[in-house]
Amino acid sequence: MAEKQLQNAPYFESVNKVSYNKGANNALAFKYYNPDEMIGDKTMKQHLRFSVAYWHTFTADGTDPFGAATMERPWDRFTGMDLAKARVEAAFELFEKLDVPFFAFHDRDIAPEGRTLRETNQNLDTIINMIKEYMDTSNVNLLWNTANMFTHPRFVHGAATSCNANVFAFAAAQVKKGLDTAKELGAENYVFWGGREGYETLLNTDLKLELDNLARFMHMAVDYAKEIGFTGQFLIEPKPKEPTKHQYDTDAATTIAFLKQYGLDNHFKLNLEANHATLAGHTFEHELRVARVHGLLGSVDANQGDTLLGWDTDEFPTDIYSTTLAMYEILKNGGLGSGGLNFDAKVRRASFEPVDLIEAHIAGMDAFARGLKVAHKIIEDKVFDNVIDDRYRSYKEGIGLEIVEGRANFHSLEQYIIDKEAIKNESGRQERLKSILNQYILEV
Amino acid sequence: MAEKQLQNAPYFESVNKVSYNKGANNALAFKYYNPDEMIGDKTMKQHLRFSVAYWHTFTADGTDPFGAATMERPWDRFTGMDLAKARVEAAFELFEKLDVPFFAFHDRDIAPEGRTLRETNQNLDTIINMIKEYMDTSNVNLLWNTANMFTHPRFVHGAATSCNANVFAFAAAQVKKGLDTAKELGAENYVFWGGREGYETLLNTDLKLELDNLARFMHMAVDYAKEIGFTGQFLIEPKPKEPTKHQYDTDAATTIAFLKQYGLDNHFKLNLEANHATLAGHTFEHELRVARVHGLLGSVDANQGDTLLGWDTDEFPTDIYSTTLAMYEILKNGGLGSGGLNFDAKVRRASFEPVDLIEAHIAGMDAFARGLKVAHKIIEDKVFDNVIDDRYRSYKEGIGLEIVEGRANFHSLEQYIIDKEAIKNESGRQERLKSILNQYILEV
Amino acid sequence: MAEKQLQNAPYFESVNKVSYNKGANNALAFKYYNPDEMIGDKTMKQHLRFSVAYWHTFTADGTDPFGAATMERPWDRFTGMDLAKARVEAAFELFEKLDVPFFAFHDRDIAPEGRTLRETNQNLDTIINMIKEYMDTSNVNLLWNTANMFTHPRFVHGAATSCNANVFAFAAAQVKKGLDTAKELGAENYVFWGGREGYETLLNTDLKLELDNLARFMHMAVDYAKEIGFTGQFLIEPKPKEPTKHQYDTDAATTIAFLKQYGLDNHFKLNLEANHATLAGHTFEHELRVARVHGLLGSVDANQGDTLLGWDTDEFPTDIYSTTLAMYEILKNGGLGSGGLNFDAKVRRASFEPVDLIEAHIAGMDAFARGLKVAHKIIEDKVFDNVIDDRYRSYKEGIGLEIVEGRANFHSLEQYIIDKEAIKNESGRQERLKSILNQYILEV
Amino acid sequence: MAEKQLQNAPYFESVNKVSYNKGANNALAFKYYNPDEMIGDKTMKQHLRFSVAYWHTFTADGTDPFGAATMERPWDRFTGMDLAKARVEAAFELFEKLDVPFFAFHDRDIAPEGRTLRETNQNLDTIINMIKEYMDTSNVNLLWNTANMFTHPRFVHGAATSCNANVFAFAAAQVKKGLDTAKELGAENYVFWGGREGYETLLNTDLKLELDNLARFMHMAVDYAKEIGFTGQFLIEPKPKEPTKHQYDTDAATTIAFLKQYGLDNHFKLNLEANHATLAGHTFEHELRVARVHGLLGSVDANQGDTLLGWDTDEFPTDIYSTTLAMYEILKNGGLGSGGLNFDAKVRRASFEPVDLIEAHIAGMDAFARGLKVAHKIIEDKVFDNVIDDRYRSYKEGIGLEIVEGRANFHSLEQYIIDKEAIKNESGRQERLKSILNQYILEV
Repeated sequence: MAEKQLQNAPYFESVNKVSYNKGANNALAFKYYNPDEMIGDKTMKQHLRFSVAYWHTFTADGTDPFGAATMERPWDRFTGMDLAKARVEAAFELFEKLDVPFFAFHDRDIAPEGRTLRETNQNLDTIINMIKEYMDTSNVNLLWNTANMFTHPRFVHGAATSCNANVFAFAAAQVKKGLDTAKELGAENYVFWGGREGYETLLNTDLKLELDNLARFMHMAVDYAKEIGFTGQFLIEPKPKEPTKHQYDTDAATTIAFLKQYGLDNHFKLNLEANHATLAGHTFEHELRVARVHGLLGSVDANQGDTLLGWDTDEFPTDIYSTTLAMYEILKNGGLGSGGLNFDAKVRRASFEPVDLIEAHIAGMDAFARGLKVAHKIIEDKVFDNVIDDRYRSYKEGIGLEIVEGRANFHSLEQYIIDKEAIKNESGRQERLKSILNQYILEV
Repeated sequence: MAEKQLQNAPYFESVNKVSYNKGANNALAFKYYNPDEMIGDKTMKQHLRFSVAYWHTFTADGTDPFGAATMERPWDRFTGMDLAKARVEAAFELFEKLDVPFFAFHDRDIAPEGRTLRETNQNLDTIINMIKEYMDTSNVNLLWNTANMFTHPRFVHGAATSCNANVFAFAAAQVKKGLDTAKELGAENYVFWGGREGYETLLNTDLKLELDNLARFMHMAVDYAKEIGFTGQFLIEPKPKEPTKHQYDTDAATTIAFLKQYGLDNHFKLNLEANHATLAGHTFEHELRVARVHGLLGSVDANQGDTLLGWDTDEFPTDIYSTTLAMYEILKNGGLGSGGLNFDAKVRRASFEPVDLIEAHIAGMDAFARGLKVAHKIIEDKVFDNVIDDRYRSYKEGIGLEIVEGRANFHSLEQYIIDKEAIKNESGRQERLKSILNQYILEV
Repeated sequence: MAEKQLQNAPYFESVNKVSYNKGANNALAFKYYNPDEMIGDKTMKQHLRFSVAYWHTFTADGTDPFGAATMERPWDRFTGMDLAKARVEAAFELFEKLDVPFFAFHDRDIAPEGRTLRETNQNLDTIINMIKEYMDTSNVNLLWNTANMFTHPRFVHGAATSCNANVFAFAAAQVKKGLDTAKELGAENYVFWGGREGYETLLNTDLKLELDNLARFMHMAVDYAKEIGFTGQFLIEPKPKEPTKHQYDTDAATTIAFLKQYGLDNHFKLNLEANHATLAGHTFEHELRVARVHGLLGSVDANQGDTLLGWDTDEFPTDIYSTTLAMYEILKNGGLGSGGLNFDAKVRRASFEPVDLIEAHIAGMDAFARGLKVAHKIIEDKVFDNVIDDRYRSYKEGIGLEIVEGRANFHSLEQYIIDKEAIKNESGRQERLKSILNQYILEV
Repeated sequence: MAEKQLQNAPYFESVNKVSYNKGANNALAFKYYNPDEMIGDKTMKQHLRFSVAYWHTFTADGTDPFGAATMERPWDRFTGMDLAKARVEAAFELFEKLDVPFFAFHDRDIAPEGRTLRETNQNLDTIINMIKEYMDTSNVNLLWNTANMFTHPRFVHGAATSCNANVFAFAAAQVKKGLDTAKELGAENYVFWGGREGYETLLNTDLKLELDNLARFMHMAVDYAKEIGFTGQFLIEPKPKEPTKHQYDTDAATTIAFLKQYGLDNHFKLNLEANHATLAGHTFEHELRVARVHGLLGSVDANQGDTLLGWDTDEFPTDIYSTTLAMYEILKNGGLGSGGLNFDAKVRRASFEPVDLIEAHIAGMDAFARGLKVAHKIIEDKVFDNVIDDRYRSYKEGIGLEIVEGRANFHSLEQYIIDKEAIKNESGRQERLKSILNQYILEV
């Protein structure tokens, strides 16, 4: 059988299973990620729920707007369905060597398109079966799958928001298959990222119809999931722009608004990406906080951007400030539930050797492991909790309590304040707090 | 009487009433704004509803973060309440010379603060009475007033979102007075711009409490307006940042979400500013469109930013592309209702002579007048309407109609598309549309 | 012969030769570009020296970082060298239909690479011969050619600035061939754009060696051009970033500094692109002005960016403000000499039909034609010249003249000013000037 | 005597001399800055050469574009010259409590202006004498002084680049006094930051004359310094924009170009600021590297910006990545010579209590101390040196050596490469390098 013929593993021949070895001068060891170490009442592995992104790691080739493929991938000696199979082999080899519990994919990452959707789905089925076999004999689970509805030229004007009803229909059929796949593989979530659900110019755009259609599409997805008994969490991933001029799911606040307006907020949570946050002008922790306070923080695309560049660089996350503040929000959220930390990150185009894939994941996993420990300790020590309790204490008594409990109005407040000569504020102490954050990051 | 003693008008001695004179090589004539010219079924003046911003034009002194006041203002020979009165005189002189029908102010623009709010309100009352007299004998009306809850140090941590309940109380009393003022002067709207309603760092911020308090505050305002019978429109003005790191009313979509979440959307519309749009990464026309399709486009702060600079430059609007596309949205909205085009714009710090104030308003009024004419003609000729009708025609029949009417689902759509070999799209024609826009702008 | 077999022209069947027809409601007519119309002492065609960019128009396929090719190109039914030949046919058909006098190309636009550089050069020779024949029987000339040293993976770390000396050698040999080509085809200029001449991270970069090598490379090019008698102008094109994190030729000022430091400023001028200017945080007119005052304004890549997006969108130029201010600098420079206005612009990915290529060029040509007329009239009327003469008049006499003529020093200046009580400045009048600019744009 | 009457110290009553106490849970102790600890062959204090910025710490009041002063400063109970004197007292108290060896000031920070420059200089002299006395009895030295030529309205159009020759004269006289002051107080450097040396709009600007005048001005300064025997280092500080639309000394590369073009590069080095780097689209370490490889790295304005905000936030530096990479460049430069790390940083407007000033400096000093230790260890271990040596090894032999030694040309390089089938590159290993950087930062 083809599978047997493809048994060309290992693809990462020079790499053994990566283990924790703190002080090591060894690029192929974890320095901070110690999977079984308890942090509070869970292990690091349980907290972090790492996931490998199939597209960046097994499908991407290093192409950029000015350059051709650079990536050297041992599986690239195959083509067509053989290539698709070889990638599965390579993927599970990498999952195992990194000991990551999850992975995620778009439909088109794992199998090539055919002439019709029917043929495409047949290709998919072959690979899904193969993946299922691998999953059955490993500890790796599917964090989420999604439908790529932005690469093929048919989606040039969008998918659910295309001006062309045939494209809407195609997208619907594609997500239907995606939900079947999710159920088949036991995906914990199903994700929507609307790469071209937006517009290029308002001059030719019926914005209202497009938004309505987007909502119609999502309701159909919810209905179908219910019908087939898929119980995973629906997630929607905001991004403000790129590839489009404007993308409807701009940021957490905008996406939450969309969900509420169209009655979808009981069915969806957010999958938040660091680089998408910065493209929207927000910090990553801001987006996580907004989702958290709305009870809609679902999952995370773990990466980082370069805030001096204006596009989605999707770098592996190595900034400890960012991983610490992200883990802070996640711990405060009681974890991510069915979500996880999916490395929606790609090695740089110039990091084209296979071993870079391993080293990049180690870099990201270590950065989040350290962030987890720091954040946990900060919470344990009530560092910011105490600051906030003290800072807002005026709302716990007197006029403040009346405000919060709805017993105040403009009359009572005016009467209270109109003859007071001065109001005393207290410093926000931002510099002290940043210094304490440094101390925790460096000393934990 | 003080008023009499202050009769030092004219302050703009060298300027006569500005009139329309198309080809004029005269900086003090309108080239495009012809107030009584009919555009469709309304005059230019009725369409445009221009308003002068009291703060930029009568109060601002040219200070910037690196520089002291530069503005030469004939009224600056006065101080205290005399200065406040002189500004009223100068203001009505300018309104009349420009023949603008509206103006707008913050409470602190028109009168200085006293030791207590009671004293401050007394100062206010003096000037409000004076303004009322001037309004009674002129054709100028109050487009909106608002409360400045960001300049005084008491608002260092915000107003309704302050961590200090006393500040919330002060702000409440201040808006109470603002609503009384609005009723007294017959304001067509009342505006909220939350200059410091946001945060500087999440490390010390209880985001959820602050958002809840902001909503509580607005509900109190709605209740009080009802109580006193103020029937003007409430408006809220989005801005993403500056002066704060993050401002809660980030952009149109975020603000609409906030209004809906807290049940305020029946009481508020949006006051949208061009420069705030670009600071949020959006075009002005995008923000107008978003508000329009939600039925929440209330009024406009007419200015422009410099997209290569990262702060609110509040320039007078002179970009005809922007004024045209703004007027397009406004005309499509059926006008602004009780709203208007308020010049939230300041002369450059280096344009410090009084006559620059006149010339800057002429520049802005001409730019919007031209934009109005162009937009009207584009709509009359159905330029973009025809493009859009044609582009989305697939939703008017067959499978598209089924989608829009809710008769489709993932099964029917899959069946429809699964064996189709190719989907045909049509070009979006952006280049042609931009060329046509140029033709309209240059030839109308 | 292959060429005969390829005679499948016309590729733009539905398009006739585009002619000037001002009021036309016809997307395929020029509204402002009237080639033979005299503007001052030259025709529009002589002033504007339009050039078509081979890569965007005949080679680009609409790929973007998230999407596959969309462009429908009649010549894409061919492959390999046949495709290369078909593109030449299509190119000259389009040049003729648009009546553009120039074109420009990278070596890899016109012919595919072979296994070795020798084979690649043989492919090139075939197409160069074909192009030469077409040029001989048309009025189209080569504005410039250049070497694509950024697409192939060998250039992953740069070309002249690669850490790999073999890559430097390859690049050298490639430019050698490029200069031979330039001489063969009578190119008016030869361009360097260092797409990957920069770095991704300083952590692994020897910045000094890379800059030195870049200069060594350019001196070799100058030497070789002298040797073969190529007398065209060398041009270097600044861009701050993208695809790299940092590109050495950041902007006009930085590139001029590089040229001066390494003694190259007598051999090179600048080829300035609008979108690269905005990516560097500058206006297009700023970059043109900087080059102009240094006597180094060579040529222009005519396009425009979207300042709300952070990447090189390379849109066709339609903003009349930008084309007017660009033409102002160019006219003030006495024209572009051997340079021209090369449309380094691509139709949007969604404008995928062949006719969009024609319409986009018309849009750009019209925008620059209008800009030319407006700028010419502004100069003729001395609008800004008079403003500047008056504004700086204090340097034409007294203490100012002493300063400019080098007769002042800190002693004389202190003595002059130390007891003066106040210095009187005059308004910069920015608002008036912008209003006048509008009047010229709309009324010329 | 007034000085005696002002002896109201301590102004920072609650603060003792700050000492090093690593694990302390005490905001008023250094956690990483241990002044006498040897790092290589120098103490931390000798390496870091910390300087307090007079303006942000003793003069700034917390004003921002939307808000009034918030800062609570014990010395603000004085006015006029008494205030100026009280600030000196407070300054030296703070210098001593933080044990910083340097400070820096603008002329207008330390004394108020009079009616004429003569009067202003008399005010200055009084305070300079007082400062001199304090310096004589302390270990604090003047890192640099400079002239504030941007705040007063006379500089509305610039100083040396003003369109008004009287302003040029005033600025000259002001810098003359500044150089006298520098000599008097033994300043180690004299700085130029051209806050308004740029333009607001090209429409009214003679860019060439302004650049020439700027160079004339600096040559006069060089001449005068020579005349009076001031031997400190001249420094120029780049910034791209703010307050102006465009500032001539945009970034390191542009400023070096200016210095070279006008023959000033032997007299000036650069004073580089982190936040100015990011406003120009560069990393701080990029600017330092550029200056270093040109031998022009003079001094540092130590702060940090917020790359998601578009203005100069001048935050105290707390990002360990930035301080590490900055110290790496500084150590590689062999230190800063006569320069130092000057905290051109301000406490947030909401950090308005005096103790915030102390805590903010501690935060910055600790961040740089840690950065120093990390950078020193990285250099000691040759972490990046080894990477770079290996990466560029091809230039140390064979064809690479020929290139570097000037023995190669296009002929020899073509011959070498033309028949080679493939060029082998090696990964840039960015992810590994970032992970190693994390390890050093966290473990040193």
